[in-house]
Amino acid sequence: MRKYCFGVDLGGTTVKLGLFDTEGDIVDKWEIPTVLEHDGKEILPDIARSILQKMEMRGMEREEALGVGIGAPGPVDSEGTIYGAVNLGWGTFNLKKELQSFLNMPVEAGNDANVAALGEMWQGGARGYQDVVLVTLGTGVGGGVVTGGKILPGAVGAAGEIGHMHVEDGEAERCNCGGCGCLEQYVSATGVVRLAKRKLAADDCPSMMRKDNLTAKDVWDAVKQNDAAALEVAEKFGWYLGKALAGIACVVNPETFVIGGGVSRAGDVLLDFTQKYFRKYAFNACRGTLFTLAKLGNDAGIYGAARMVLD
Amino acid sequence: MRKYCFGVDLGGTTVKLGLFDTEGDIVDKWEIPTVLEHDGKEILPDIARSILQKMEMRGMEREEALGVGIGAPGPVDSEGTIYGAVNLGWGTFNLKKELQSFLNMPVEAGNDANVAALGEMWQGGARGYQDVVLVTLGTGVGGGVVTGGKILPGAVGAAGEIGHMHVEDGEAERCNCGGCGCLEQYVSATGVVRLAKRKLAADDCPSMMRKDNLTAKDVWDAVKQNDAAALEVAEKFGWYLGKALAGIACVVNPETFVIGGGVSRAGDVLLDFTQKYFRKYAFNACRGTLFTLAKLGNDAGIYGAARMVLD
Repeated sequence: MRKYCFGVDLGGTTVKLGLFDTEGDIVDKWEIPTVLEHDGKEILPDIARSILQKMEMRGMEREEALGVGIGAPGPVDSEGTIYGAVNLGWGTFNLKKELQSFLNMPVEAGNDANVAALGEMWQGGARGYQDVVLVTLGTGVGGGVVTGGKILPGAVGAAGEIGHMHVEDGEAERCNCGGCGCLEQYVSATGVVRLAKRKLAADDCPSMMRKDNLTAKDVWDAVKQNDAAALEVAEKFGWYLGKALAGIACVVNPETFVIGGGVSRAGDVLLDFTQKYFRKYAFNACRGTLFTLAKLGNDAGIYGAARMVLD
Repeated sequence: MRKYCFGVDLGGTTVKLGLFDTEGDIVDKWEIPTVLEHDGKEILPDIARSILQKMEMRGMEREEALGVGIGAPGPVDSEGTIYGAVNLGWGTFNLKKELQSFLNMPVEAGNDANVAALGEMWQGGARGYQDVVLVTLGTGVGGGVVTGGKILPGAVGAAGEIGHMHVEDGEAERCNCGGCGCLEQYVSATGVVRLAKRKLAADDCPSMMRKDNLTAKDVWDAVKQNDAAALEVAEKFGWYLGKALAGIACVVNPETFVIGGGVSRAGDVLLDFTQKYFRKYAFNACRGTLFTLAKLGNDAGIYGAARMVLD
């Protein structure tokens, strides 16, 4: 009998759900809204109902379903306990057991960024590898560490929080986390714009980047046009990210880094600037670590969530 | 029947061996010389012979022995492959399988620093924890990462090489690894002396540290006497180490850091300066990470090696 698993990516606005076979092929994909009323108490019953309905619609037997994995926007430890999820109004509780209580099948739970790393390992940019660090460059900077094919959750689910590594002593602006000089302040979408604006303010060099509502995409487009000021920004970006990843390599020594998130759409040029400084600062044994772009985009979460069930 | 496991800590001069019961109590401990002749080809047969002799001497039956764990001075991956050990004249080969071929019992192999981390987790400073980072401050700086009670080896056995995290952009002197500005250059035994000499050269302040053949112990002794110059050195030490550990916490989020190696004999005062800066730079969720001193000293390796067999 062909077996299936469900992957759930729980976000602040929508819940993405996917049905996969054990080979990692996606069979079905759908969304439901995230109901935030009543302190997010409807969310898990809604998810369970949606999965059970899907099984009924498809005429799936209970024995065909291996289980449900869920990635959630908060720190989750190896037991499935989530230590609060601000965007959902959630406090601390065992997410795995709670969702399991609504479903007659095994459940696994993880942090969304960690789960996405597992998805990229299974069917994305790091397919074929077992030791992977995912770096997500979006509005913020997240990450996930996979070792030996499994998520490394950390003691309180905070492993892979690489956006908050301190990388700059001279920073005066505060990060969202309250710290100063976090990696996120330089290599997230807003971080890239911050670096660009600082460069443009430092002198009156001509640049394609001198425009209203500058975005990270504008900056990388200018880099691709060999805009001199933009190239300086790209060097600075690569210096921050490459150096941070060199430090990470000394700690967990992955086979490959996978770079994802909106900023990574800049593509190979972004990897080039990052790898230049990675190689400069990396320990000898880690200098050959691979770099690749994420492939699954917004689906990484449902892939990784489903993959958790197969462990 | 009571069961036993052997732990082997392979060094460049001596091989330490220990016999443990499954509760982690040490039953016997001995040493043999490391024979470096013939490209180190005698080493594994010597170890096997010594273990078999010990079993015979003690009248141990084969069924009483669960196996042998070995920690070696080189990178070792999850399959037991060692990627060279310069001090032993070894190239790349499967250490686990090779030692197993001389012994009729299961063998596990790991890098010596990683294995020591497991030892401290089992019966040392981190007893009772499962997610541990060991930092060894000796002639060099080594480290080991334990997650979920198991060693994290990394893709090429280079996980936990935290002495070579880049922490200083303004360094002109080279580290032994060829890099500039590695953590090891500031917090190893020679690193502490480097920081002290630089402080003493910067001005002509009076200090207990103005003496011939200054050692790291002299520096920490001066710190304990509230020597003003030494206190500045301790702040700098804590800044480098605390900041680096804050970065490590963002990656693997351990429950506790264990600080070992000769320099750590300075004791709690060293932890105080380190934790001060750790808390300053750590991500919120990791700020409560514990700090403890290593307890097993030079025996951490045999403890951890034996513990590998029980996994």
